[in-house]
Amino acid sequence: MSGKTRAVICGASGYTGAELLRILSRHPHVEVVAATSERSANKPVTGLFPHLIQFAGLILQPLDVKALADKGDVFFMALPHGASQQAVNSLFDAGKKVIDLSADFRLRNPDVYEKWYKEKHSYHAALSSAVYGLPELYRESIKGASLVANPGCYPTSAILALYPVLKQNIVNTADIVVDSKSGVSGAGRKADLAISFCEVNNGFKAYGVSTHRHTPEIEQELSAIAKTNIKISFTPHLIPINRGMLSTVYAKLKTDISIDEVITIYNNAYKDEPFVKVLPQGMFPDTRYVAGTNYCHIGLSINHNKTLIVVSAIDNLLKGASGQAVQNMNLMFGFDETTALDSLSPVIP
Amino acid sequence: MSGKTRAVICGASGYTGAELLRILSRHPHVEVVAATSERSANKPVTGLFPHLIQFAGLILQPLDVKALADKGDVFFMALPHGASQQAVNSLFDAGKKVIDLSADFRLRNPDVYEKWYKEKHSYHAALSSAVYGLPELYRESIKGASLVANPGCYPTSAILALYPVLKQNIVNTADIVVDSKSGVSGAGRKADLAISFCEVNNGFKAYGVSTHRHTPEIEQELSAIAKTNIKISFTPHLIPINRGMLSTVYAKLKTDISIDEVITIYNNAYKDEPFVKVLPQGMFPDTRYVAGTNYCHIGLSINHNKTLIVVSAIDNLLKGASGQAVQNMNLMFGFDETTALDSLSPVIP
Amino acid sequence: MSGKTRAVICGASGYTGAELLRILSRHPHVEVVAATSERSANKPVTGLFPHLIQFAGLILQPLDVKALADKGDVFFMALPHGASQQAVNSLFDAGKKVIDLSADFRLRNPDVYEKWYKEKHSYHAALSSAVYGLPELYRESIKGASLVANPGCYPTSAILALYPVLKQNIVNTADIVVDSKSGVSGAGRKADLAISFCEVNNGFKAYGVSTHRHTPEIEQELSAIAKTNIKISFTPHLIPINRGMLSTVYAKLKTDISIDEVITIYNNAYKDEPFVKVLPQGMFPDTRYVAGTNYCHIGLSINHNKTLIVVSAIDNLLKGASGQAVQNMNLMFGFDETTALDSLSPVIP
Amino acid sequence: MSGKTRAVICGASGYTGAELLRILSRHPHVEVVAATSERSANKPVTGLFPHLIQFAGLILQPLDVKALADKGDVFFMALPHGASQQAVNSLFDAGKKVIDLSADFRLRNPDVYEKWYKEKHSYHAALSSAVYGLPELYRESIKGASLVANPGCYPTSAILALYPVLKQNIVNTADIVVDSKSGVSGAGRKADLAISFCEVNNGFKAYGVSTHRHTPEIEQELSAIAKTNIKISFTPHLIPINRGMLSTVYAKLKTDISIDEVITIYNNAYKDEPFVKVLPQGMFPDTRYVAGTNYCHIGLSINHNKTLIVVSAIDNLLKGASGQAVQNMNLMFGFDETTALDSLSPVIP
Repeated sequence: MSGKTRAVICGASGYTGAELLRILSRHPHVEVVAATSERSANKPVTGLFPHLIQFAGLILQPLDVKALADKGDVFFMALPHGASQQAVNSLFDAGKKVIDLSADFRLRNPDVYEKWYKEKHSYHAALSSAVYGLPELYRESIKGASLVANPGCYPTSAILALYPVLKQNIVNTADIVVDSKSGVSGAGRKADLAISFCEVNNGFKAYGVSTHRHTPEIEQELSAIAKTNIKISFTPHLIPINRGMLSTVYAKLKTDISIDEVITIYNNAYKDEPFVKVLPQGMFPDTRYVAGTNYCHIGLSINHNKTLIVVSAIDNLLKGASGQAVQNMNLMFGFDETTALDSLSPVIP
Repeated sequence: MSGKTRAVICGASGYTGAELLRILSRHPHVEVVAATSERSANKPVTGLFPHLIQFAGLILQPLDVKALADKGDVFFMALPHGASQQAVNSLFDAGKKVIDLSADFRLRNPDVYEKWYKEKHSYHAALSSAVYGLPELYRESIKGASLVANPGCYPTSAILALYPVLKQNIVNTADIVVDSKSGVSGAGRKADLAISFCEVNNGFKAYGVSTHRHTPEIEQELSAIAKTNIKISFTPHLIPINRGMLSTVYAKLKTDISIDEVITIYNNAYKDEPFVKVLPQGMFPDTRYVAGTNYCHIGLSINHNKTLIVVSAIDNLLKGASGQAVQNMNLMFGFDETTALDSLSPVIP
Repeated sequence: MSGKTRAVICGASGYTGAELLRILSRHPHVEVVAATSERSANKPVTGLFPHLIQFAGLILQPLDVKALADKGDVFFMALPHGASQQAVNSLFDAGKKVIDLSADFRLRNPDVYEKWYKEKHSYHAALSSAVYGLPELYRESIKGASLVANPGCYPTSAILALYPVLKQNIVNTADIVVDSKSGVSGAGRKADLAISFCEVNNGFKAYGVSTHRHTPEIEQELSAIAKTNIKISFTPHLIPINRGMLSTVYAKLKTDISIDEVITIYNNAYKDEPFVKVLPQGMFPDTRYVAGTNYCHIGLSINHNKTLIVVSAIDNLLKGASGQAVQNMNLMFGFDETTALDSLSPVIP
Repeated sequence: MSGKTRAVICGASGYTGAELLRILSRHPHVEVVAATSERSANKPVTGLFPHLIQFAGLILQPLDVKALADKGDVFFMALPHGASQQAVNSLFDAGKKVIDLSADFRLRNPDVYEKWYKEKHSYHAALSSAVYGLPELYRESIKGASLVANPGCYPTSAILALYPVLKQNIVNTADIVVDSKSGVSGAGRKADLAISFCEVNNGFKAYGVSTHRHTPEIEQELSAIAKTNIKISFTPHLIPINRGMLSTVYAKLKTDISIDEVITIYNNAYKDEPFVKVLPQGMFPDTRYVAGTNYCHIGLSINHNKTLIVVSAIDNLLKGASGQAVQNMNLMFGFDETTALDSLSPVIP
């Protein structure tokens, strides 16, 4: 008996599942005791991900929430949206600590969920207990939470980009533009012509224009920060790279303020944050330097049209998914927040 | 004696020069009689570009404007900004037809040029004769022009995206955002660590934030269309692909208008344009389908925040440079506007 | 009634089908009258391939050999291996000209076919009439053929690399190594996790080691040239690029011969070939310069171990498939062999 | 005073230097006390490599061997070939432990060095003391060495691929073919048109055909293992990826032996090796799974021509350079051989 916290990963055959395994293998206080997959049930994890040699003995099993509930202390749910609801609710009811990487418990208003996801939300009690798992905004609540709704990748990059200025109330909230670009791993691990190499390589395109489901999630959190109802213009794009996400955010300044002052506001807002780095004036992030890490890099500028331009970059699979999930787990269990995350290094070049 | 129009390409060792050669080799009425390069003087064109086998005998020569002036009927100037001014002016004074791919004659106000390019403009007479070479806006003037200032790649994509709605006066001109992304060939053909494979591949970043020199060029033309002074927020980004440029443009609608009506406005504006294609509702461009062609593809959407989103895509080296230059030459010499351009096909996949 | 040769493309929803359409749209003497696809039946060609705007009216139809037989003069069969046999045979029996891009009629000995393809060959009469469609070896036979078996991409690159020296009998035939590398489009257009962007990008691997089905096809043709039974060592690899194939071939020289003499042998062998280019000494091909064209580039060296190294490069979808198919059609119908092929240009960069 | 071993990195502005820094930052017993660079002298390391935040205070200094000699216990020399000779010799004479990542001390016979590198070798005494730093072959000698010549990347992949069968004397040594493919980082970090993004992306080519300088290094070590003079055919190629190297090696078997027996020979040869992994029958390496790690993966096959095909993959910057250098340092100083190396994980996808 190891005395370690026992982790279960539900939905481990995707890229976020693989990253959860990779990170947790470095965690001194956590042991992965089970991992599930429907499509790859009964296969060893290393059959799918040969690099996860630390899990040589681990066999993927079909999801059986009841059987698993007793085995684990913390459950990472990396199931498809919709499929997640019931499983998360069962584990929540069983008193387990749950970190849900799906979108099912992120939107506080179930009507908004149903409108954007075209799916009924049947677990309002669990939903109202869920804490939105962005440590930079909700660290204290996360520490006490049973159910953490791990943020989407686009929302993480957009919210961290805007939090300091919205809190200071210095930008016009009516016409914020969030122009985001994501690597292909955001689309998941699957057989799909649209993400086959020849269809993606050498190209660049927008997708989900005006319809992407991360829109209400971003708006919910920006509105909460600004204490006013915010609607944004959000367009995601597909970059022909594996990992990395960059959001370019435009917000009109309401006051005369210098770029130095803005940078000071960001530095103050994030000065104690282990995973947010505000770049010096004139520097802007490159996804290469955050890929493979749990960091968010932020660069700032004010242009000749009195518009603040914030460029934020994260690794969509780490700070945008599995890294942030482990950060949340660390908070929930009282581990040092950076455990297993600070040794992740970008591979340059 | 062939009876063909004699073309001279000044600055032929770059990617735009190579594309000019490739296109002109397909042109039935034009013959390339000389091509210049300082860094590769006395080398054969095929030493630099083995695929240009049609030019097996053509040797690059140092630029000697006087000597060249007699040899050619039309001059494509693909020289670095600044270096172009004097050469263009000499040829203009000599009564030659000149198409300048540099930025030197694009900004009508020399003060604006000097402010953004940190370089004096010494040829105001030529400047005031120059026609901005965007056929969709200035076709008739181009036909009669001696000096055409070929537009920048970002401006081409941004102006074509906004022309119809600015002309109709249905968007707020105060807070237009142009978020653009370009393939690496936009940076030119040169030895430079910043564009070496390992520094670009697998990454994505913004550059020239708030400072890119195409900003005043875009503003000049948008202002001319809208008949009001427009300032925009413009951010270029680098995509790890060779060719292709995509601009995502945001403009708040001033009136209640449906997406169908907007698409109709665009279709009407571009119905006679051989190289602009407005996509059906719900479809948005992918750079893959314009790369290798002279086309501009445009997709349109209105979001829940009453903002019009226009996505335009071009090949930065073709409609964004050499293709448009040949389109301009066709107009200037009375050739069919699509000659040598309509047989360029994208290579899919 | 156009007087043009009527072409039918069976299996037009793949990349080779799309390339056949693109090339034939440039062909002055051919008209595509029908195109089939099972998975995309009843969809317009432009729904799959937006760049093929010349075929705006063409609707993909399910394969119905009987109904099609009357409509066309020449049939391009781009069906999966195995599925091709019966359809090809029916058209052959109906007296039609058929160019089969599958492997079904390439191996003269049906036992070899059955051994490597694990499939019975039921049409021995058609098989014995089939001509192997490599113009550089079988031009005269192709001109008179009813059924042409269009070569595989790897075999095209390997056979063209070795033909001159095997014919001259100057290399040891016992230990020839063909180490080949192909772009991803060689795997076809399909939903398959193994060729999804994230699984291919940034990687390089061998596949089909010792088991690839192009092995007996290469051996058949090399043996025919050398008039002796040849077995080779052949390993294909996957390059993270869309198009392009490069084979590095090693053969021990039997005689003392200089590299100049070897290059002369190659130049003589290919001096009248429109699509094979032997590079000068010290130069070796880059797939970039053949991608998008029907060319094969060949570079040659002799090393300090008296081994001849031949590097050949083609576009796997053009000289390795659809371009060669049109070259064969041109020969079968008495058109100029380069029609519609010589205007294909590589897109550099 | 930390009690840690003091490391100096000479030539730290390249990719191998950056990787040495990244690895050593994880090493509990080593402290980097100085790093040199001529082109970036007086710049902070983080100015070049923003991800190396652990070295925020470290300023690159010009190389001054005398001044540095007292400061360090171990010297990693990542200088250009030729430039390395004198500096290495001085440190060697000063009694320091030196690991030279250049080629200057790899070839035991200075005549061979001078023939292939076109440079005189002036330090025969140091050369004769140098140990070739491939732990799998020379572990015991490395432990006692003062000067370790760290192997080249291609030699590492080729020698590990062939060592077991050459030792067992079961392949013909006359006609070994080593067909190797490398990511672009192998060319170093520099401004050079030939490795600019647009010149490399989408392409694949051979280079250094019959002339690459790693040839005699591979031959030296294969000959030593086989105890006979071996000449090989070696061709390197450039893959459009940042990292990763794959060698496909062909050797004719002298005896009737099954693939199972061959795999057993490899497993026995490498059973105690921490960084060599022999894959099960039918599996072959993908560079993606070794990139970012110090591992070498090996796959094996025997084809129908009685030829053994060995496919080996490494990360050219790690097992092919900096990782192996640290592995050698660990041996030289009595640290656990895997220290700071076993926590390097590949980033998948």
